[in-house]
Amino acid sequence: MIILLKNHADETQVASLQNWLKSMGYAIHMSVGQQQTIMGLIGDTSRLDIDVIKSLEIVENVQRVQEPYKSANRKFHADDSVVEVGAGLKIGGGHFQVIAGPCSVETEEQIVYVARRVKAAGAGLLRGGAFKPRTSPYAFQGLHEEGIRLLLLAKKETGLPVVTEIMDIAHLPLFEEVDVIQVGARNMQNFELLKVLGQTRKPILLKRGLANTIQEWLMSAEYIMAGGNDNVILCERGIRTFETATRNTLDLSAVPVLRRLTHLPVVVDPSHATGKAELVKPMAAAATAAGADGLMIEVHNDPPHALSDGAQSLTPEAFEDVMATVNAVRPYACR
Amino acid sequence: MIILLKNHADETQVASLQNWLKSMGYAIHMSVGQQQTIMGLIGDTSRLDIDVIKSLEIVENVQRVQEPYKSANRKFHADDSVVEVGAGLKIGGGHFQVIAGPCSVETEEQIVYVARRVKAAGAGLLRGGAFKPRTSPYAFQGLHEEGIRLLLLAKKETGLPVVTEIMDIAHLPLFEEVDVIQVGARNMQNFELLKVLGQTRKPILLKRGLANTIQEWLMSAEYIMAGGNDNVILCERGIRTFETATRNTLDLSAVPVLRRLTHLPVVVDPSHATGKAELVKPMAAAATAAGADGLMIEVHNDPPHALSDGAQSLTPEAFEDVMATVNAVRPYACR
Amino acid sequence: MIILLKNHADETQVASLQNWLKSMGYAIHMSVGQQQTIMGLIGDTSRLDIDVIKSLEIVENVQRVQEPYKSANRKFHADDSVVEVGAGLKIGGGHFQVIAGPCSVETEEQIVYVARRVKAAGAGLLRGGAFKPRTSPYAFQGLHEEGIRLLLLAKKETGLPVVTEIMDIAHLPLFEEVDVIQVGARNMQNFELLKVLGQTRKPILLKRGLANTIQEWLMSAEYIMAGGNDNVILCERGIRTFETATRNTLDLSAVPVLRRLTHLPVVVDPSHATGKAELVKPMAAAATAAGADGLMIEVHNDPPHALSDGAQSLTPEAFEDVMATVNAVRPYACR
Amino acid sequence: MIILLKNHADETQVASLQNWLKSMGYAIHMSVGQQQTIMGLIGDTSRLDIDVIKSLEIVENVQRVQEPYKSANRKFHADDSVVEVGAGLKIGGGHFQVIAGPCSVETEEQIVYVARRVKAAGAGLLRGGAFKPRTSPYAFQGLHEEGIRLLLLAKKETGLPVVTEIMDIAHLPLFEEVDVIQVGARNMQNFELLKVLGQTRKPILLKRGLANTIQEWLMSAEYIMAGGNDNVILCERGIRTFETATRNTLDLSAVPVLRRLTHLPVVVDPSHATGKAELVKPMAAAATAAGADGLMIEVHNDPPHALSDGAQSLTPEAFEDVMATVNAVRPYACR
Repeated sequence: MIILLKNHADETQVASLQNWLKSMGYAIHMSVGQQQTIMGLIGDTSRLDIDVIKSLEIVENVQRVQEPYKSANRKFHADDSVVEVGAGLKIGGGHFQVIAGPCSVETEEQIVYVARRVKAAGAGLLRGGAFKPRTSPYAFQGLHEEGIRLLLLAKKETGLPVVTEIMDIAHLPLFEEVDVIQVGARNMQNFELLKVLGQTRKPILLKRGLANTIQEWLMSAEYIMAGGNDNVILCERGIRTFETATRNTLDLSAVPVLRRLTHLPVVVDPSHATGKAELVKPMAAAATAAGADGLMIEVHNDPPHALSDGAQSLTPEAFEDVMATVNAVRPYACR
Repeated sequence: MIILLKNHADETQVASLQNWLKSMGYAIHMSVGQQQTIMGLIGDTSRLDIDVIKSLEIVENVQRVQEPYKSANRKFHADDSVVEVGAGLKIGGGHFQVIAGPCSVETEEQIVYVARRVKAAGAGLLRGGAFKPRTSPYAFQGLHEEGIRLLLLAKKETGLPVVTEIMDIAHLPLFEEVDVIQVGARNMQNFELLKVLGQTRKPILLKRGLANTIQEWLMSAEYIMAGGNDNVILCERGIRTFETATRNTLDLSAVPVLRRLTHLPVVVDPSHATGKAELVKPMAAAATAAGADGLMIEVHNDPPHALSDGAQSLTPEAFEDVMATVNAVRPYACR
Repeated sequence: MIILLKNHADETQVASLQNWLKSMGYAIHMSVGQQQTIMGLIGDTSRLDIDVIKSLEIVENVQRVQEPYKSANRKFHADDSVVEVGAGLKIGGGHFQVIAGPCSVETEEQIVYVARRVKAAGAGLLRGGAFKPRTSPYAFQGLHEEGIRLLLLAKKETGLPVVTEIMDIAHLPLFEEVDVIQVGARNMQNFELLKVLGQTRKPILLKRGLANTIQEWLMSAEYIMAGGNDNVILCERGIRTFETATRNTLDLSAVPVLRRLTHLPVVVDPSHATGKAELVKPMAAAATAAGADGLMIEVHNDPPHALSDGAQSLTPEAFEDVMATVNAVRPYACR
Repeated sequence: MIILLKNHADETQVASLQNWLKSMGYAIHMSVGQQQTIMGLIGDTSRLDIDVIKSLEIVENVQRVQEPYKSANRKFHADDSVVEVGAGLKIGGGHFQVIAGPCSVETEEQIVYVARRVKAAGAGLLRGGAFKPRTSPYAFQGLHEEGIRLLLLAKKETGLPVVTEIMDIAHLPLFEEVDVIQVGARNMQNFELLKVLGQTRKPILLKRGLANTIQEWLMSAEYIMAGGNDNVILCERGIRTFETATRNTLDLSAVPVLRRLTHLPVVVDPSHATGKAELVKPMAAAATAAGADGLMIEVHNDPPHALSDGAQSLTPEAFEDVMATVNAVRPYACR
């Protein structure tokens, strides 16, 4: 951390700041210039509140020079992480996977049918919501325990590992046979939930919060990893901007940015990002070309009658078409 | 809900849509023009997914004509709600309250001292964090149970009712003697938590999520109220924008907008919104003038050494100065 | 336009609204329900201020049902527009072009050298700034007239048509031999400039404003087309969001969204959008896969010593590598 | 400017960087630590492109330590600037002025009537648009030359100095008798226009761009001041965010932030910021309390029939009510 002091800063206050920082275990390197003085802190500054220092009367400016995340940082882990999901399925480090399925699990018939169709089209994992975060308390909230039971039934029928969202720590026991636990965008900074998931060894699909920076997202991954669980998969699903032509704005630049900052795998969800079925194929192709490690795509047997997010779901036929394009683009992906 | 059909929409599909809507209990009013046909739905459309209808081939556009929230809606509750906090303290409907105290409870000495000072200056409630949501897993996370114990001790010493944040449902039993439970910005859409708080009868201070619209915020209030708990206080604390001169952008227009949309009391937190102590006074004065029902202000005995958010905390002396201005402006507030 | 009246709206006021609208030439279709009354306006409502109507006491809500742009609207022009640039070069409708060159024209040697290199690598047009919009009045503002002279010299040497930005109407005579006139993001709503460009028949490259919606962008295209100049090429170059990891957030979804709304060609500028040379290749590949009609890429002989935007410029060698990937992805682009 | 070099940076490249910087006239202060080396540049770094330096292989990070604006900087001009408008009217430094009038000048009758009413209510200046920037080319664009003529006629009738917007340099001769020239939000970075206005000595009302940071805004003020014209008044009018309940989000924190960064007067336009007449009074009161030097408010004799922006215009009676509140709050404003 670099602290730039004001011109003619009061010497007693400077000494007091030095003593306080030393008492917290930092070594200090002073660089006294004619016009300005710079203090360089040596030591682990990730616990230091940059705003407190900025607020001091003698301080002109402060800058962190290290990223505040460690376990997730590529600097300390040069190779791509490969997350193993279920028996032998891998994601990351060149292993590309498509996660597909309905927004919500509705019936046994529906989930098994969709599972078979997406597997045949080349999906590696099945998604399906049992606990659904809905803006309105009056909207369909998912089948809960029954939804997970049906999802596991579809897993048994098809062999596809399954991904489903957790909304509360208390539900964790229900997820024992779930292969990948999803943390939704609205819970990306539900730190208590992240800590508990860090205590498990389950793969976690961590969606980006709708107004969170890439750095905050990596800090949330760090919460999980700090507990000892390195099996984190990041999922870009669009951010909130002023544009209303799409539900969110898919931030595809996040893919190559993350490639440089972290070793964790990154998948992209074009269905939630755009909110429109007709935009899924071009954005899936774009995400693949940009170097994503996988995709997450909503597929429903009967989109107009889906109990949630029908507008953005593909039919199984449309999904096959997306897979054909994605497979064609993959050899030229920028990784 | 108004559904505008496309010109020359297929009649079989139109009939099929009508049947489906009727099967869900809606009455339909058709208005067939030369150029376009409009379907008006009569009935409670709050459970209907507008996006599903928009996605139909025969539909040009859809518009909701009713707000999707009811309990929180001023249309169905013309008078201001007054929330009672502790023994006889009221907020809303002309009752203006200032909530003050440190970001985090640190020691008994600290919290009791600050409580005495803010009470003397005119604060009606004491705030103090025991569970602290922090972006980094390595940052100070609060004293937890011990923090609540110290806060209640300060309550006993001063008589001030207390406000503190909950981060997980499992901690609820610790909040039994807490007067107002705060839901932080990051948990505004932690729907499971909202549902549980709806089952209590505690006053809930519901902070606005950093990228949530006013309507989404009211829907979160609706989650609490749908459970039977009408004691909801809304707290504007800044939204995320491109501007970096302040930590967040305080959306003060939300105050008069909410006044029209809801009967719930609205308080403003200029400390978190701006992130800078020097901006608290002008924004507290502005919030008061705009008609807020109260303020939430961080006060610390020793801001530079605060364990969290020191940069935005006021000294007790600075807080007295803010109170003087706020009291002077109050008679001219736009309510 | 659909106007939803309030329940129990004053009948005299309703009649007065009807008369006013009729006096402006609209036919009105009233649909009187038990609970609510809907007025449908028939006629060209693009000149009607929706906010005025919303502000009336008797009005609950208003919705436009037609896009406010016409010449740019695919509904009235189903085929892709193909813009001809220079002698025989085409863009749009399946004709894909890469525009490359330095941010600023600096010297004859530089611009001719870069022109030769980008032509050899497959670029179809040469870019180079002569008038540079810079945030600071103290920064390099371009070579102005001399810059255009050098750019045209490079055109003569290589045969590449040239693209360069106009910042003021008064400079238009200098652009006589320029093949494509660029309107920069900051001037996207400089309506006087757009009107004048609408009087020419030059191809116009219209960059998206950094906080403008897709609809506003199309309205700016409409300004040019309303003057009779249909040769408009849209250029997505990133929008402003809260994320700071990239200079702007490239909104790639805009490409397929525009494909549906308009017949005009759309190119993507990954250099300005990301602000980082290392992100240009993955985002160029992604834009191509998403179906863009072309790319605009900054290439400089010596990026670290570029007089502007060096950080985002590619070397000629890196540009060759981008072209190889783009050419490989093109056959699978979603168009 | 502080440049943090990477650990083990190549020494030849470091030397080369030093030589390049010295050749540009900077003195360099090296601070070599065990872990990291810091270069401090002494000299005027406002012309140095921070991104170029960031892009160098040996550089970890760069930070500017000085604001890039000078003439507008309070550091070099401690006292508030007072801008004189017309004969003896002052704004800034404790002089508070309200600018009121219709969005567009429509008829002689209208503008003279409104001028009389706002003067009687206490306004110090009259506003009225003659050149109107409209998103649609088909919308009313103002009366142009005739509008300015009518505005000057109202000035003659009432003695009120007038403010009106310029959209193109070529129109400048028409503004000779105009007292304050307004630069609209869409032209805040029309740098050619700013340069020309810098050559005049007219007071310039510079509105904030809808997605511009406070620093960019001050840089635009700097463009005007660099030409020798110090008569700049800043006008906050709302920024673009995700919230749709108001037209824009009024960033009132900008008022106290600007108070610290610049000596220029700051006024607030609650009419354009909110887009709704009913929100003007509370936000006018809030802006006054926050310490603004003035307000800009739309007043129309017949808002529902205004040719532009009727929804946000006040009646003369409502304006009188706003003035009463503003005058009551003013003694307690935070300045």
